[in-house]
Amino acid sequence: FPSQGSKLWGGRFVGDTDPIMEKFNASIAYDQRMWDADIRGSKAYVKALERAKLVSTDEMEQILHGMAQWSRGVFVIKPGDEDIHTANERRLKELIGAPAGKLHTGRSRNDQVVTDMRLWLGSAISTLTDNALQLITTMVERAAAEIEVLFPGYTHMQRAQPIRWSHWILSGAIAGTPFDIDRELLQRELGFDSISLNSMDATGQRDFVAEFLFWASLCLTHLSKMAEDLILYSTKEFSFITLSDAYSTGSSLMPQKKNADSLELIRSKAGRAFGRCAGFMMTLKSLPSTYNKDLQEDKEAMFDCYDNVQAVLQVTTGVMSTLKINQTVMEAALSPDMLATDLAYYLVRKGVPFREAHGLSGKAVFTAESKNIALNQLTVEDLTAISPLFGSDVSSVWDYRSSVEQYSAPGGTAKSSVAAQVEHLRNWLKKHAQ
Amino acid sequence: FPSQGSKLWGGRFVGDTDPIMEKFNASIAYDQRMWDADIRGSKAYVKALERAKLVSTDEMEQILHGMAQWSRGVFVIKPGDEDIHTANERRLKELIGAPAGKLHTGRSRNDQVVTDMRLWLGSAISTLTDNALQLITTMVERAAAEIEVLFPGYTHMQRAQPIRWSHWILSGAIAGTPFDIDRELLQRELGFDSISLNSMDATGQRDFVAEFLFWASLCLTHLSKMAEDLILYSTKEFSFITLSDAYSTGSSLMPQKKNADSLELIRSKAGRAFGRCAGFMMTLKSLPSTYNKDLQEDKEAMFDCYDNVQAVLQVTTGVMSTLKINQTVMEAALSPDMLATDLAYYLVRKGVPFREAHGLSGKAVFTAESKNIALNQLTVEDLTAISPLFGSDVSSVWDYRSSVEQYSAPGGTAKSSVAAQVEHLRNWLKKHAQ
Amino acid sequence: FPSQGSKLWGGRFVGDTDPIMEKFNASIAYDQRMWDADIRGSKAYVKALERAKLVSTDEMEQILHGMAQWSRGVFVIKPGDEDIHTANERRLKELIGAPAGKLHTGRSRNDQVVTDMRLWLGSAISTLTDNALQLITTMVERAAAEIEVLFPGYTHMQRAQPIRWSHWILSGAIAGTPFDIDRELLQRELGFDSISLNSMDATGQRDFVAEFLFWASLCLTHLSKMAEDLILYSTKEFSFITLSDAYSTGSSLMPQKKNADSLELIRSKAGRAFGRCAGFMMTLKSLPSTYNKDLQEDKEAMFDCYDNVQAVLQVTTGVMSTLKINQTVMEAALSPDMLATDLAYYLVRKGVPFREAHGLSGKAVFTAESKNIALNQLTVEDLTAISPLFGSDVSSVWDYRSSVEQYSAPGGTAKSSVAAQVEHLRNWLKKHAQ
Amino acid sequence: FPSQGSKLWGGRFVGDTDPIMEKFNASIAYDQRMWDADIRGSKAYVKALERAKLVSTDEMEQILHGMAQWSRGVFVIKPGDEDIHTANERRLKELIGAPAGKLHTGRSRNDQVVTDMRLWLGSAISTLTDNALQLITTMVERAAAEIEVLFPGYTHMQRAQPIRWSHWILSGAIAGTPFDIDRELLQRELGFDSISLNSMDATGQRDFVAEFLFWASLCLTHLSKMAEDLILYSTKEFSFITLSDAYSTGSSLMPQKKNADSLELIRSKAGRAFGRCAGFMMTLKSLPSTYNKDLQEDKEAMFDCYDNVQAVLQVTTGVMSTLKINQTVMEAALSPDMLATDLAYYLVRKGVPFREAHGLSGKAVFTAESKNIALNQLTVEDLTAISPLFGSDVSSVWDYRSSVEQYSAPGGTAKSSVAAQVEHLRNWLKKHAQ
Repeated sequence: FPSQGSKLWGGRFVGDTDPIMEKFNASIAYDQRMWDADIRGSKAYVKALERAKLVSTDEMEQILHGMAQWSRGVFVIKPGDEDIHTANERRLKELIGAPAGKLHTGRSRNDQVVTDMRLWLGSAISTLTDNALQLITTMVERAAAEIEVLFPGYTHMQRAQPIRWSHWILSGAIAGTPFDIDRELLQRELGFDSISLNSMDATGQRDFVAEFLFWASLCLTHLSKMAEDLILYSTKEFSFITLSDAYSTGSSLMPQKKNADSLELIRSKAGRAFGRCAGFMMTLKSLPSTYNKDLQEDKEAMFDCYDNVQAVLQVTTGVMSTLKINQTVMEAALSPDMLATDLAYYLVRKGVPFREAHGLSGKAVFTAESKNIALNQLTVEDLTAISPLFGSDVSSVWDYRSSVEQYSAPGGTAKSSVAAQVEHLRNWLKKHAQ
Repeated sequence: FPSQGSKLWGGRFVGDTDPIMEKFNASIAYDQRMWDADIRGSKAYVKALERAKLVSTDEMEQILHGMAQWSRGVFVIKPGDEDIHTANERRLKELIGAPAGKLHTGRSRNDQVVTDMRLWLGSAISTLTDNALQLITTMVERAAAEIEVLFPGYTHMQRAQPIRWSHWILSGAIAGTPFDIDRELLQRELGFDSISLNSMDATGQRDFVAEFLFWASLCLTHLSKMAEDLILYSTKEFSFITLSDAYSTGSSLMPQKKNADSLELIRSKAGRAFGRCAGFMMTLKSLPSTYNKDLQEDKEAMFDCYDNVQAVLQVTTGVMSTLKINQTVMEAALSPDMLATDLAYYLVRKGVPFREAHGLSGKAVFTAESKNIALNQLTVEDLTAISPLFGSDVSSVWDYRSSVEQYSAPGGTAKSSVAAQVEHLRNWLKKHAQ
Repeated sequence: FPSQGSKLWGGRFVGDTDPIMEKFNASIAYDQRMWDADIRGSKAYVKALERAKLVSTDEMEQILHGMAQWSRGVFVIKPGDEDIHTANERRLKELIGAPAGKLHTGRSRNDQVVTDMRLWLGSAISTLTDNALQLITTMVERAAAEIEVLFPGYTHMQRAQPIRWSHWILSGAIAGTPFDIDRELLQRELGFDSISLNSMDATGQRDFVAEFLFWASLCLTHLSKMAEDLILYSTKEFSFITLSDAYSTGSSLMPQKKNADSLELIRSKAGRAFGRCAGFMMTLKSLPSTYNKDLQEDKEAMFDCYDNVQAVLQVTTGVMSTLKINQTVMEAALSPDMLATDLAYYLVRKGVPFREAHGLSGKAVFTAESKNIALNQLTVEDLTAISPLFGSDVSSVWDYRSSVEQYSAPGGTAKSSVAAQVEHLRNWLKKHAQ
Repeated sequence: FPSQGSKLWGGRFVGDTDPIMEKFNASIAYDQRMWDADIRGSKAYVKALERAKLVSTDEMEQILHGMAQWSRGVFVIKPGDEDIHTANERRLKELIGAPAGKLHTGRSRNDQVVTDMRLWLGSAISTLTDNALQLITTMVERAAAEIEVLFPGYTHMQRAQPIRWSHWILSGAIAGTPFDIDRELLQRELGFDSISLNSMDATGQRDFVAEFLFWASLCLTHLSKMAEDLILYSTKEFSFITLSDAYSTGSSLMPQKKNADSLELIRSKAGRAFGRCAGFMMTLKSLPSTYNKDLQEDKEAMFDCYDNVQAVLQVTTGVMSTLKINQTVMEAALSPDMLATDLAYYLVRKGVPFREAHGLSGKAVFTAESKNIALNQLTVEDLTAISPLFGSDVSSVWDYRSSVEQYSAPGGTAKSSVAAQVEHLRNWLKKHAQ
């Protein structure tokens, strides 16, 4: 090549290689996590080389032996190890000499990188799946044990209707089940039971990374929502739950404080993971086809999302298994106005169209508010003035447990329905936890 | 309710309802696109009500008749129509009177919204699938017809190795196949063949929207990459392709310009779609469980992504079916140095380890550059000086067509291999295009 | 130009122009909002043309007259109006004939677009500034009027120390002041008192759009945080505030519900605006220099952010001016443990190092919890057992108002300090509200 | 506190503290970078304590002495050091004993964190400013030295008009000047010459971080665009520039390849930085006011953006100072059709309205294409057939240098105009580089 540019313009650096560029270019600091995956991939490749007669059986065995030895050793970076692939090849040469030079015959580094990432991610997803199953198990068993506890369901953060505490727990556990779908999707791909259809697409494409990053974001977004609920429930004002000390921290200034730091950290990680996804998508945008060095951004994003999803799943499991619920407070938070819908249904059952019944129940709410009494303190006379269809049997409406028992359709908050959800998830867990 | 706050502090508005708030709250301007989906959902719901004896058979028939009438009419918004659901119920009442008030017995608007969105998205995905299949068909048939054309493959935007033009086309078409997976995934869900497991999760969850937005982003990111390649290929410097006038525009200032506006717009839409995805994910972050009005952001994002994916697919189909390739220029861009890898393989076949062969071929490249000649102009003597293994048979290396034919492994650029990709995609299309 | 490509491959469209491409390319549907800005820009430009003797004085006057006429008319799109610039030039030609063709001599459409956007944004920012000043005024005056109200300050959503309600209000108002900085920054630029230094940079650069989008995101993120606080304070459990009916909505299902929809919509818009910013940044990423059609994404993003910031500012002003605070509930939420820091300071004043005092106060909290009594119910004996420095004067600690008054440093929650913040902001408003 | 929850539900962990939670909570691994900033902040704070008579003069001196000693030492993390603030206080206690406990009297950790971050960022921005000035200097001096070189200006990646190479360089340098504005903005804040107006806002607000992250994103987006241009110019097809070997890398597979890895990495970092910004904005969204642990996400994002901006600025300086331009190729890329606008201006000068002149020049382009000759090969007769105003003086149009010299308005590509830009930037640099 022609000699490099002169330095007429005061550049920072002139010489053979700019050390800052070298550092900027190197990935060994983080891609050494793929040490083992690279060795696994190379072991498979050398067998294919032998079958293609590009290495002899003896050379193949030397290479396999060298790599086996290496994978039992301790990984040490040496100067010049730009990435894990050069480091592994350098070490193999130290161990077995010349035949090491044949290992990557006809295989580009881009091919190695993408294979290693798929292998690494395959193992990583297995671990995350285990963590997720542990979390779901905790939630399901807790829901089973505490099925009798009622508390207010909220929409718009306003008390809506009485529900079972277990119903809430399971709404979180169910948001976890997509794990399964993704596992199948990714494992199908990562099991390598099909081959890439087009070689240009194979090395330049990072859909499996982008999809993993988005899955991590969506998973952590669900957990940020669950954390928000629990932070709310642990405020003095709600006091529905008490966090274990193991997941709380004190204040450096205020001696009485006990903060739900664990939940706040869980809540914060959705942003972090999505930021990684956003950053990588932006890096991908309008890249020319095949490999470009820009793709190097894939690995740190993938590792960081994995680390964070794993920590969040483990800490959430800890939080959910140790928090204490305050049943008395939860049930005391139920109030008669939460039965206003039931009052409307009472009229619907007597033939009133729902829109009209809804309006009549609204009038009852308004009357109670005007009189400054609770909705269930309205007399039958008060109610009859609103609609002649109200009778003395209206008293049956004012019972939280029977209200809850009405919702026995699948997915509802009746005991039978929540128990069915528990059962469904137990079976689902049995199927996936082997 | 207690009367509203006084206005000690100079607020903009005091009265019963703030018209700006009303407009801020209303969604009818965009959710009227779900007119038909809302009617379909309501028709199904009234049948369930009849079975539950909450409406009589006669009422059900009135309601069904009214809705059938309405769906053949012209949609007109009236004042007070906050969203498509209230508009449809209002219209039904105008058409059939009292029984209309029974239609939504026991069904919250949140439930209606989410059902309508799933129904709408089901149809929308069918349309997008058709558009995508049309694009893939165009690409596959074009690849079949132009299989003889060679041109440089690029990595890092630098010429790498000779490839078939059809190989490039198919690398784009294959990036389109994930369509299939998503279609199954979403249709399984949208076919409603399973029910929501938990009622809290059902109304407060928008995973199907988030996943659609991300799928749209990833799909458009692929197309932004393809557009980048084509913009590059249509520069004067590359001159590999000429865009049809139908997809080019002139300059208001420079009479000679012909700009690839269509491709630039395609390239730009990845950002737009991902912005919608990013915005919605941020809105979801740490929302408390169940319904919150924040979720209203889902619809415009969904509609906008649909509109843009559809337009991009159609315009890309048009671009790909009408562009002209300049075969002479493409093949003239092939240069002997692109065969340096083949030169190394020549030595590998004579037993030299690949790492070493790579180095020797690099020396040949350097020698040619020093002599200021092309790589294939090196004499056998020049080459023998580098390695005694070079012989006169090295001349066989300098043929682009035989170079390409080496890559006959699945996914490669040999004619047989590209033809197999065409065949695979034709079969895949046959399976999906019914 | 060579005739366009043939249609061997089943493309959707063959003809002179693809109508879908035309629609995809057109921006008139949204850029007609710049009608007036485009006329203003053209009026200035024709004067420069006359000075350069490229149009005669008579032609200039015809053009100015035609544009004045047009700007008083009604804007009607005609077929072929690709964007607002062609529409205005077309209309000018209808009004004054031939001289219209001279208007854009030596001026590219890219130049027109960017000038119009800067002019439009200048006016838009003025409007937003007015809206913001109205919101800040409301908050400042409300803070002044309600300065006596105490309630719990929260960190980690846990009660921390007693603070003034006005202190909270002003923490929101102050987050609004960056408005000022941005206004100056943008107005300096938009006042056109300096010229672009480099013509390539001038047409291809959209920093002013990206910065506006980010500013809108940050502004709405602040308001999402304020909305979150207010949603919390309006829950039944907190009950610190009651929203005006004008900014609440009922439930279609539950007659008793009153939802803070206004605040939830405010909270949701941060995501929307940031999505626009994210999308545009992604579109910008790695675009070649100068104009590329991708930049067309700038306008809808800018308009959408403007519309949303404006609506949010107006609705927030309405909410803040009409909500009622429930002083009794707010003050009842203060509890003696919130004075634990004051108890530590009591010891610090007697010479105990803060770290130690913090520990001793923590012990007092623990003792009270063990005895199941409030912190201020500990006897002097109880306290002396913890530290001999406690004396009977400790009773002075148990007063919320004097606790609050300690924080009289600038920015604190003492009455004088909050009053100073009110005063500072009133002066700031006076300076900016002319 | 009540004992923690029991473990009925199979939780992963039961005990006093969950080690995973401890790790999840700790920030020392990355916030030790603020070691020095924390000491600087504490030195200032202890002086304020002494003035407030909360520590004696002697104690202050002990503390100052201890911290001076510590800042000359080597930073070693010990178990229990949760963050840099506890680590520094722990070490101070080891060095001077009891008085260390008085250091943070009346100061929360949240206050410390935010002060340290502002101090750290102040120094960081100084460094980045130096790096940016070095890059701008390189570009300005290079532009001055190579002012005679012409090459095609591109819009839409299509050749547009001839411009000076220096004009292109300066369009990049100017995009760098916003540095200045931000530096002033941030330094004003970080110089602490004003105090926070509201204590709640002060600890819970991270605008300075969000704005730094966005500034980093916008800055790297500009550099991604410049990198894209340079990658394009270094393709074989353009061949306008040759990158120095110090900033190129070879291929593991293809011996002849020389890849512009440095530029591809520069291009990729815009996504990374914006991802950090997106992630942090999402974490901020709808956080309640004051401090929440979620804010801990601020530091890693800030450090990562700093590291990447710094590396990108340094590598870009290296690339720009060492690349070689290929003047012959650049000037050979100019073609007569790029003078079609000049041909229109020729007619404008003879009184033809621009719109009409543009059309006539377009006809000339079409005629030349039909005849398959270059635009400047049209005879006067050919041109007169298009417009009788064409005369023999039209030959003066066909000169690239005089074409370029027409654009002598400020910001244009005439020599005088580019020289003025160089001069302006040299002065600007002189002002900022002290």
